[in-house]
Parts: sequence; C-alpha cells; structure tokens
Amino acid sequence: MYSLAELADRLGLEFAGDPARIVRALASLEAAGPQDLSFALDGRYLARLAATRAGAVILPAELTAQCPCDHLVSAQPYLAFARASRLFANAPGAAPGIHPTACVDKAASVHPDAAVAAHAVIEAGAVLESGVVVGAGVYVGHGSRLGAGTRVYPNAVIYHDVWLGRDCVIHSQVVLGADGFGFAAGPDGWEKICQLGGVRIGERVEIGAGTTVDRGTLGHTEIADGVIIDNQVQVGHNCRIGKNTAIAGCAGLAGSTIIGANCTLAGGVGVVGHVEICDDVHVTGMTMVTRSITRPGSYSSGTPMSGTRDWKRNAVRFSQLDSIQRRLAGLERQQQKNSDKG
Amino acid sequence: MYSLAELADRLGLEFAGDPARIVRALASLEAAGPQDLSFALDGRYLARLAATRAGAVILPAELTAQCPCDHLVSAQPYLAFARASRLFANAPGAAPGIHPTACVDKAASVHPDAAVAAHAVIEAGAVLESGVVVGAGVYVGHGSRLGAGTRVYPNAVIYHDVWLGRDCVIHSQVVLGADGFGFAAGPDGWEKICQLGGVRIGERVEIGAGTTVDRGTLGHTEIADGVIIDNQVQVGHNCRIGKNTAIAGCAGLAGSTIIGANCTLAGGVGVVGHVEICDDVHVTGMTMVTRSITRPGSYSSGTPMSGTRDWKRNAVRFSQLDSIQRRLAGLERQQQKNSDKG
Amino acid sequence: MYSLAELADRLGLEFAGDPARIVRALASLEAAGPQDLSFALDGRYLARLAATRAGAVILPAELTAQCPCDHLVSAQPYLAFARASRLFANAPGAAPGIHPTACVDKAASVHPDAAVAAHAVIEAGAVLESGVVVGAGVYVGHGSRLGAGTRVYPNAVIYHDVWLGRDCVIHSQVVLGADGFGFAAGPDGWEKICQLGGVRIGERVEIGAGTTVDRGTLGHTEIADGVIIDNQVQVGHNCRIGKNTAIAGCAGLAGSTIIGANCTLAGGVGVVGHVEICDDVHVTGMTMVTRSITRPGSYSSGTPMSGTRDWKRNAVRFSQLDSIQRRLAGLERQQQKNSDKG
Repeated sequence: MYSLAELADRLGLEFAGDPARIVRALASLEAAGPQDLSFALDGRYLARLAATRAGAVILPAELTAQCPCDHLVSAQPYLAFARASRLFANAPGAAPGIHPTACVDKAASVHPDAAVAAHAVIEAGAVLESGVVVGAGVYVGHGSRLGAGTRVYPNAVIYHDVWLGRDCVIHSQVVLGADGFGFAAGPDGWEKICQLGGVRIGERVEIGAGTTVDRGTLGHTEIADGVIIDNQVQVGHNCRIGKNTAIAGCAGLAGSTIIGANCTLAGGVGVVGHVEICDDVHVTGMTMVTRSITRPGSYSSGTPMSGTRDWKRNAVRFSQLDSIQRRLAGLERQQQKNSDKG
Repeated sequence: MYSLAELADRLGLEFAGDPARIVRALASLEAAGPQDLSFALDGRYLARLAATRAGAVILPAELTAQCPCDHLVSAQPYLAFARASRLFANAPGAAPGIHPTACVDKAASVHPDAAVAAHAVIEAGAVLESGVVVGAGVYVGHGSRLGAGTRVYPNAVIYHDVWLGRDCVIHSQVVLGADGFGFAAGPDGWEKICQLGGVRIGERVEIGAGTTVDRGTLGHTEIADGVIIDNQVQVGHNCRIGKNTAIAGCAGLAGSTIIGANCTLAGGVGVVGHVEICDDVHVTGMTMVTRSITRPGSYSSGTPMSGTRDWKRNAVRFSQLDSIQRRLAGLERQQQKNSDKG
Repeated sequence: MYSLAELADRLGLEFAGDPARIVRALASLEAAGPQDLSFALDGRYLARLAATRAGAVILPAELTAQCPCDHLVSAQPYLAFARASRLFANAPGAAPGIHPTACVDKAASVHPDAAVAAHAVIEAGAVLESGVVVGAGVYVGHGSRLGAGTRVYPNAVIYHDVWLGRDCVIHSQVVLGADGFGFAAGPDGWEKICQLGGVRIGERVEIGAGTTVDRGTLGHTEIADGVIIDNQVQVGHNCRIGKNTAIAGCAGLAGSTIIGANCTLAGGVGVVGHVEICDDVHVTGMTMVTRSITRPGSYSSGTPMSGTRDWKRNAVRFSQLDSIQRRLAGLERQQQKNSDKG
C-alpha cells in the first residue's frame, strides 16, 4: 500500500492528482478500481483509458489530456510499469537457513543467510552465496555455484560443475548441465561421448520452467549476463548466448550454436547446430534457422495460415514449385522468340 | 474380472452371446484372447474383426453380422470402449493420510481422506479437498487449492495462488504458476515485470507430463472446465482456454492468447500472443497461428514433406515466389496486348 | 592421467611421438595445451591442427603429415575420440546403498550394490538390478524394473509398469509412463480412456532431460535397444521405436507412430499419429511427417529462412499458389493455341 506521492517518489516520476491517494494494487485499465494503479502505453489504450475506474494510471505525457483520473507521467511507461510491479511483488519469500529435511553435504558451502528448503540436496563442493534461495526438492550437484541472490524454484535440477552468477532466477523443472546429445557411430551402435565440460551462466539471467541447458562436451556451455529465456527452451551443448539476448518459449538451439548479444528469438524458433548469429538479430516465431546470420535485422521462415481446404490446394503446389518455375521460364523463352519474330 | 452380462449392464449396452463369459482384460483385436474384450469402431476394422480371437467385442450394430464372437453393441463404440477402460483401470491407488516424510505446513488445510505421499511439500494456506492425491515429491505453494478428487503425479510443481477444481489430473513434471515471460527494456538490460496474478483451472481438467502453465501478470491465467492438455505444452501468462478444448503435445501458446470452447489444437501448433480464437476451431499439426480466428472451421499452415532432394529444389523457389508471380503477371499482360492486337 | 603409450594401448591405436608424454585432459584443438589430447576428423581441421598447442592429437592417417605434435592414428577418429572421452569421464559416481532419507517399499527389490540417493521413492514390486544408480528425488513406480547398470538422474519420474533394460541412462525431469492423450467425446465433454499398458525399453537406451514417453493404451509403448533420444522429446502412447534410432531435441511423435531401426529424426521434427516409418530413414529438422515412409532415404519439409521483409512478400504468394498454377496453365493453353494457329 502506497500513497500516490510515495509511488511517484519511488518510481522517480512526476504525478498529477491527490498525493494522499491510496494505491493498493496494480490492475489492467479494464479491471482496475479506485485503489488500483494501472497503465496506458500509447494511443491504442485511449478507449480503455477513457473508460477506466482506476485510481491512478502510469502514462506518457501525450495521454495526460485524455486521462480521467490521477496519473504518473513517464517517457517509458512500460518500464515504469515493470518497476511498479516490483513494489507490489507478492511471491512468498523464504526464511534463511537449512530446512531439517534438506541434505547438505559437509563439503558444501552454504552462506548463513541462504535458504535451503525441504528435501533439497546440495552435493559436496557446491557453493551457495549470500541470499541464495533454493526451493523444495531442488538438486545442486558437485562443485556447482549459485551467486548471491540467485533463486531456484522447486524441483529444478542443477548437475555438477554448473556456475550461476548473482541474481539469477531458475524456475521449476529446469535442468542445467545434463549431457548433450553426443554419440559416435560404432560397430555395435551409438557410443557415448562423455560430456566433460560444464555450464557457465552470468548475472541476472532468468530461465523459465522446464527449460534445459546441456553441459559442454569439452569446454563450457555459456550464457552471458542479462539473458532471459522462457519456458521449455532447449539449449544444446557448447552453445554460447550473448548478453541481454531473449529467447521465447519452445525455441530450440542445437549444439554449438553461437548467438550474439541483444538478439530476440521468438517462440518455437529452431536453430541448427554449428551456426553463428550476430548481435541484434530478431527471428520471428517458428522460424527454422539453417545458416549463420551475419547482418543485424529480422529473419523469418514458414508459411501463412489459411483454411485447411485452401491450404491443401496451395500446399500441393509447393511440391511443384520447381516445375512451375521451369514452365514459366519456357513461356518466357517462347514469348521472347515471338517478339523477336514480331 | 466381469461376466459379459455384468459388463453389458455396467456399460448400459445390449449384448449377444454367453452372459456368463468371463472377461479379464481389454485388448486390441490382434492381441486379444478368449478372456479379453476388444473393440471395432467401423468398417476399417472388418478384416481384424474377422480374424480376432477375442472373447467379446464392442462394436456398432452394422458390424454385428460379421462378428465371429460375442459382442456388445454401441452406437458410440469408442465412447463405450473409454468407459470399459475405466472398469479395468490398473493404476495404483493411494491410501489416505499424510506420509511421515511429507512437509505439510500447520497453516495448510488437508482433508482427512486426502493422500499426501512421501517428500511432498504443502505450504501455508494451501487447501487439499476430499479425495485429493498428491504424489511423491510434489510441491503445492502458498494458498493454492486442489479441488476434491484431484490427483497430482510425482514431482509436479504448483506455485502459490493456483486453484484447481474437482477431479483434475496433473501429470509429473507439470509446472503450474511459474512466472510468465514479462520484461521491459531498461537502460541496463531487461527489467522483470513481477507476475502478480495466479492460475485458475476448472473441473475435470487433465494436464500432461511436462506441460507448463504460467501465472497471470495482473489477473489470472484461466483454463475452463473439461479442457484436456497433452504433454509438453506451453501456456503463456494471461491465456484463457475455453471449455472442453483439447490441446495436443508440444503446442505452445504465447501470452494473452484467448482460445474458445470445443477447439482442438493438434501437436506442435504455435499461437502468437494477443490473438483470439473463437469456439469450434480446429488447427492442424505444426500450424503457426499468427492472427485471430473469428470463424469456426479448420485451419492449417506448413508445407508437405517430400524427399530432401526434391524439397530443396522446391524450397529454393519459395524464396522466388514474389518474382515468379511478377513474371507471370508480365506474361499475362503481354498476352493481353497480343490478343488485343490480334 | 595417462601416458601416450597407455592411451594408445587402451584405445587400440598406433601412435607417433613420446610414449611417456603425459596427457591429463581432452580439449579442442584451439583450447588444448601441452598436456591435452585433442582430435582432428578431416581436412576441414587442417588450419586448426597446424596452429594447435595440443600435446597429442587423434587423427586419420591422411593428416599425420601436417600434424605438428604427437598423434594417435585412427581410421575412425570420431569414434576414437568418443572412446577417449570415456577415459576422462568426470561425472561424480554414486556409492552403493540406500540413502536413509529414501523411501523404499518393503516389497521392492533393490540389489545390494545398487545406489538409491536421498529422497528417492521406490514403490512395491519395483526391481533395481545390480549397479543401478537412482538419483535424488527420483520416483520409481509399482512393478517397474531398472536393468543392471542403468542410471537415473535426479527428479526423473518412472510411473508403474515401466521396464528398462541394462545400461540405460535417463536424465533429469524425464517422465516414463505417464498417461497418453486418450479421450473419447461424450455427452458432457471428454471421457478419459484409461491407459492400461506400460512401457518397455531395451538396453543401452539414453533419454535426454525433460523427455516424456507415454505408457501404452492396451499394449506397451516400446523403445528398442540402442535408441538415443535427446532432450524435450515427446513420445506418444503405443509408439514403437526401432533399434539404434536417434531422435534429436524437441521432436514429437504422436500416438501409435512406428519408427524403424537406424533412423535419425533431427531437432523439432513432428510425426503425426498412426504412421509407419521404415528402417534407415533420415528426417531433416522441423519436418512435419504426415504420412508413412516406406523407402529409406532423407525427407524434409519447411521453407527457407530469409529477411522478414522478403519473406512476407513471398509468403503471401504461397496462399496464391494454386491460382498461380492455374494462371500458368491458362497461358500454356493459350500459347499452344497460338502455335497451333501459327
């Protein structure tokens, strides 16, 4: 619960309205009531802004004239909303200390103000720095390190020799450091290539539920500072992902893929192995990246959705595309001949 | 073990044959023996029906003449088979009570006939109604609620403020209520938007192994009664999924997607964020849904599979499609000119 | 730590150089130092081979002349590298015995030299043979069997009636034996088809993190000897996968799919249900397999990646392909008429 003046102060924003107005929660323009703070990002929010019952709204200067209620003015209203959300954070915290049912090896190092929840297992040589929160049932393998303030949600698994920097967030069912898919064809079938490297993850990295990051084969799989990864993403062995890159849900990176800084991969993107994507590349949803990308920009593949009947008619022609092109070239030659004659 | 007459009675079906015939198990027409019950859905099963050694078969009236053995007649034989399968259910049950290794907070409410297995963790404010079964290693967060008869399989994770209705089935490694992928670009990289909402799931919802459903940003992510979701599906924050909709494996819904009732999304379908799909829409496998769908019907995208050599030849032409169309239009104009002349 | 002579002996390879040279680790040609062993597979490695500081290199005979250091000669250098990797394996082992926090049912059978880690749960009727390693928090259901030497990593879940042969490796968050996606449409919505079968997995099968294999509906889901499956793969109920087939990350098999021996499915491939793929089939990344494949060979679908602007221009033409083909046919008829006249 904050007063409007207090909110403005904490967010570093100018405000208009009653400084003593009480704000109890964040809500969308549609759902907000008189004790809620909401937000409007641009002109597309105008109709909802006009109709809102919110007590106060974060908005850009150009919307203030149309705002029916108190407001906080920000040149970056979405960023201001993000910061406001942290003032209302409601996720349950964790008390420091090791739960009696947790199994912490004598040769592990757990900072006194770290929290280790029920049934967690911390192996020898593991290091949990100050403020680390390890959820129920989490496994932290031999020699793995969690930097100060890093939080790991229940049942996530961190294999041995996986290092995370400060202030990372690892959601449930994540697996960091499982073996990559390395096998050589032998006389009696596949022979395993032992995956001898680890995983090195920077600071402020967030990894969504069910995502898997394989350990390196010889060196390490590397994820740089500030990378954000959504749910159910697969990162193969030996990948390197550059600073502040964002990877949306269900994307998959095959082994030894290198991705630059400040890239965004949308949902369901697949990247073949051993390619390199430079900085500032954006890949649209479900694109299949089959070669290296050396210039910043936006890239895509796939076909547009249509009704299934129309789609079938068109899709069958896809398999005739080369012949269509050859027939077209034939007509062009014929026409050229005709016009040469004519 | 049932007699044929007893089976017919329980399934509400007419039968022909020996009422005292003993049926011990369900099996396919190919695998069934004299003490097994099998099923045939339509004419495509005729050859297998003729050859079966089954003791009895569930089938529609039009197949009775060709049936070599006892049978149960149903106008909806697949539904009758589903109901028969429940008579032979063999999944191990769970005894009521809290396993001594489970950690149940004093401020949680667990119905006396609910079952909480080994190493499960139930946080403060959580509510487990009558007949709930919580498997080994499951985590149920603060204030989350499991309706009567709901079963959660081992190691699934339910974050705080996630409510499930009666008779839901949640398979292993499911994550309900992890943070959605919400970040705003700040001066030093991504800034997290705290995900303040919860998840609200109706009655009789089944969610397959490894599926993730993110919590809402401000309001709740919502899944209506009777929805069925297969394995490894990703449901982003703020999604709403309508009654009795079915979503097959590996599908992914980006944030704020709204899906109507009685829809089916086939395997691997991806739906972009902030779109709305109306009731009674069917989307075929691996389709990329990039816009709202406002009319019931079937929708598709993608290209047909072929041999890789042919595919390469055709795929390269895809990148020339716009030029192919322009060349074609040029020829048409030329032809028009010619015929105007002629 | 090995001497070069000892390495050559263990790998069964000829060597050139100092037999007493000490090798402490495996490393890539770029990263290797004087006490490291590296490898070069073919001519593409020549520049890196020339520049390497490695103490010794595994390579094929044709590269020996250009090798600046000691070497081990192999006709199959990648296989030799795989075998060398096992000499340097560094994954922490597990001491035999049952951890005091594990819950092992009295009616389970655990071999005295099997290892059961903290908080694992082993149900009645389960069998763990000699040398089995069950990681922390793993669940093994009623009547399931782990063959000698099989290792299961932390928090994986094995439902009831799932059998694994010798020397399998199951990574974290894997789910074996969850219910398949079987439902019949009833008057009030979906009615569940109980999944009465189990899972049968052969010897030397490796299954990557987060992969799910559903139990069979009536019979068993089957995975043959030597199959390797990467992370986050979905295998539907009743599938059968043949010997030594390899399935890369994020692939999905719908129910009742049959895949032959020695196939490779690349990352993100989707296979529709009830189709059959013969032996020796290779499917390229993200292909949608919508029909049975009866001839060995390589198969593909999808469209090539390009810049988003170009892609949009071409993709819109995809929806016009049938009309493009009809326009083309019209021009061809017209041309034919003209040339008949001319």
